[in-house]
Amino acid sequence: MIPFGAGFSLEGNFSQPYSGICIDFTLMDKILAFHPDDMDVVVQPGIIWADLNTQIESSGLFAPMDPSVAATVGGMVSTNCSGPYAFRYGTMKDWVLNLTVVLADGRVIKTRRRPRKTSAGYNLTSLFVGAEGTLGIVTEVTLKLAPIPEDSSVAVVPFVSIAEAANAATALIRSGIPIAAMGITDEVQMKILNLYGSAGVRKRRWEEKPTLFLRFAGTTQGIQSDISKVKEVVRPFNVPFVLPKSKAEEKAFWAASKEALFSMVKIRPEGMEMWSTDVAVPISRLAEIIEWSKRECGNRKLKIFATVLGQVGDGNFHLAMFYNPRNQKQKEAVEKFVKEMMDMALEMGGTVSGQHGIGIGKKDYLRDELGPETIGLMRELKRTVDPKWIMNPGKVFD
Amino acid sequence: MIPFGAGFSLEGNFSQPYSGICIDFTLMDKILAFHPDDMDVVVQPGIIWADLNTQIESSGLFAPMDPSVAATVGGMVSTNCSGPYAFRYGTMKDWVLNLTVVLADGRVIKTRRRPRKTSAGYNLTSLFVGAEGTLGIVTEVTLKLAPIPEDSSVAVVPFVSIAEAANAATALIRSGIPIAAMGITDEVQMKILNLYGSAGVRKRRWEEKPTLFLRFAGTTQGIQSDISKVKEVVRPFNVPFVLPKSKAEEKAFWAASKEALFSMVKIRPEGMEMWSTDVAVPISRLAEIIEWSKRECGNRKLKIFATVLGQVGDGNFHLAMFYNPRNQKQKEAVEKFVKEMMDMALEMGGTVSGQHGIGIGKKDYLRDELGPETIGLMRELKRTVDPKWIMNPGKVFD
Ligand SMILES: Cc1cc2nc3c(=O)[nH]c(=O)nc-3n(C[C@H](O)[C@H](O)[C@H](O)COP(=O)(O)OP(=O)(O)OC[C@H]3O[C@@H](n4cnc5c(N)ncnc54)[C@H](O)[C@@H]3O)c2cc1C
Ligand SMILES: Cc1cc2nc3c(=O)[nH]c(=O)nc-3n(C[C@H](O)[C@H](O)[C@H](O)COP(=O)(O)OP(=O)(O)OC[C@H]3O[C@@H](n4cnc5c(N)ncnc54)[C@H](O)[C@@H]3O)c2cc1C
Repeated sequence: MIPFGAGFSLEGNFSQPYSGICIDFTLMDKILAFHPDDMDVVVQPGIIWADLNTQIESSGLFAPMDPSVAATVGGMVSTNCSGPYAFRYGTMKDWVLNLTVVLADGRVIKTRRRPRKTSAGYNLTSLFVGAEGTLGIVTEVTLKLAPIPEDSSVAVVPFVSIAEAANAATALIRSGIPIAAMGITDEVQMKILNLYGSAGVRKRRWEEKPTLFLRFAGTTQGIQSDISKVKEVVRPFNVPFVLPKSKAEEKAFWAASKEALFSMVKIRPEGMEMWSTDVAVPISRLAEIIEWSKRECGNRKLKIFATVLGQVGDGNFHLAMFYNPRNQKQKEAVEKFVKEMMDMALEMGGTVSGQHGIGIGKKDYLRDELGPETIGLMRELKRTVDPKWIMNPGKVFD
Repeated sequence: MIPFGAGFSLEGNFSQPYSGICIDFTLMDKILAFHPDDMDVVVQPGIIWADLNTQIESSGLFAPMDPSVAATVGGMVSTNCSGPYAFRYGTMKDWVLNLTVVLADGRVIKTRRRPRKTSAGYNLTSLFVGAEGTLGIVTEVTLKLAPIPEDSSVAVVPFVSIAEAANAATALIRSGIPIAAMGITDEVQMKILNLYGSAGVRKRRWEEKPTLFLRFAGTTQGIQSDISKVKEVVRPFNVPFVLPKSKAEEKAFWAASKEALFSMVKIRPEGMEMWSTDVAVPISRLAEIIEWSKRECGNRKLKIFATVLGQVGDGNFHLAMFYNPRNQKQKEAVEKFVKEMMDMALEMGGTVSGQHGIGIGKKDYLRDELGPETIGLMRELKRTVDPKWIMNPGKVFD
């Protein structure tokens, strides 16, 4: 069994004691082949994406998926992760050219060769991407790479309410302006940055308001043009539009956005657990569900510390909450609340997991989301590929 | 059985007499639900993409996949098609949010709901996309839409040789400039445009040289910036760089590029068949295989009329050849030549089908491409979903 868990409990991905065998991919962290002229790279699953990008930086290429700083390519493949850049670059499935996978019966398959485009046979690559290790062990990954943009910038835009911020995000998505990344954080999260951000981030006093972080990437001239278009779209919201005055400040702006979830992890009080929800909805419903979540979280007197954050470009956001797992009443209240949020997301045509996966904690909700027929087909596929159900048993479904 | 074939014989997709039942999707051509605020649309499989785009045009949104003008969304899904815009927008799999599929045993499944991003369960959508109807009948498709860019332009760049044109294409891909589409056509194809292009296209005399057609899309200012960057990249090739002087001329430039394969279809002499190859290779090998193909086609004295064309942005190109199917020697020579081209593409790490699919004609090559283990797994999946093998029997594999 392969519970190579993150060591960090995201909703649905709680680690769990397993019997059987665990595989530690830490040492499988090598670049096996780098083809800069083809703009791809073959890596082992244990490599951390940030290390990969550092190692290939001088080529002018990069792997654009950027989830948590500690994420490995194998984990990223297996959760179909995304990150701030998903708005421009899509999700992990769009960057995997092929996988080498060890199946339950010991067969080793390579899903395909290295062309950037193919219509040859079933898309096995996408079947293993996001399968959370339940269909086989990924031992090699060929990643498509993108050219590092010539220039970048970041705008910070504070709003009077989270609904306004979310509405502006929706307007920006609809505008078609090629923004590279779009993050939302609420006023609580901004306060945390003021108090607990890294040194560079704390140099500045952030307005403690719901904020959009917009990242631009492209040519210097193109970015200027994108920024002026964005200003037009947000003008009706009558908000400040803060641009960095230097490259150092730009870096700090972006770090602030990237640190959001991580700073929550950092300040988690002894004995408390963090629960990060992960729903995604069709974009026209985003403001509504974010506002509802924040309001409910307050109204219920859950008495829990919670912040909203996430990459809203695709209708996905997180509500990160601290709760005491030994306070049964609080735990149940949080569970009930999260269940309602997922029901609402589903009712809106959304999903219970935009990026973290189903893991162990969300199996029931996956059933609600997809219905018995679709889950039935997934189970049949699982049974075909792993008849003895030995690969990450207990994850995704039973 | 469901041989709802294209009526047009692309390599690998030859239609074939079937017993059993045929489904004609012509009347299933409706838009079922349009959600402009979510930027998606639910359609029946028989709708032609160009009709769909006309119907929703006033919303400022469009479906970016643009293969042949007669292609239906169901066919596009089932071949994981692409088109000129693939360079910017990816392939069909990137634009399908969910599918409703009737399985062989009559079960109807919906692969997922409508969020733009999800990590919930196996990616069934991508399993059916590109399955060429062998896993089930697609009866409804939810497509993600993109905002219609504010402005566009087209540059026409003639080169002294096809190798130079392909090398320039590779340099442009590597540059990261957000070109929207990139087509290559050889001197033969340009001659055909001069002789047989549509009225608008024939207004201009095209240089009969290997040519790159570059399409730009974005903001007016952004496009100017992209064009000047592109000029820098192609400067070392010392070539003219022709830009349209009016919107009408821009339209004619683009029509010329889009008409390429179609004009071959139009001029096909009575009794001759057209064979269009479809390999894709890692981009650094593109110039080599295109040049080899053209040279071999001449050297062998195949005595066939052939042109090179295609959307090279992802390393994919077509050699379109006329041959006489009743001339056994010619037919065999063409078959042998195509086999060698596919072997070369595979040896380069490429694929035998970049966009048209495997169909009936390329089953053997798919085996060569993927090897027995991988094909074995595909067959097991097929057997799980369609145990009686009644869905498009004889396609993809036996
Ligand atoms: C601060 C923070 C920020 C984050 N931000 C984001 C974000 O922006 N976007 C996002 O998508 N996620 C984010 N995450 C979640 C997490 O980073 C991603 O889901 C990531 O993709 C998981 O990688 P990992 O190496 O931690 O995988 P793990 O948690 O170790 O594994 C994930 C799953 O994949 C399986 N697995 C791992 N390796 C293999 C393999 N080689 N073969 C088969 N199965 C395998 C595991 O068994 C497990 O089921 C964040 C997490 C944190 C803590
Ligand atoms: C002039 C010309 C230019 C072209 N340019 C391109 C191009 O740029 N890019 C590109 O990718 N292709 C191109 N093609 C090929 C073709 O347009 C595409 O492959 C297209 O996606 C096929 O659509 P269709 O409606 O013709 O499908 P069909 O040929 O009718 O069907 C294709 C396959 O899908 C199956 N199928 C169809 N409908 C369903 C359904 N509802 N459920 C299940 N299975 C189904 C069929 O059985 C068949 O196996 C071109 C063709 C021509 C003639």
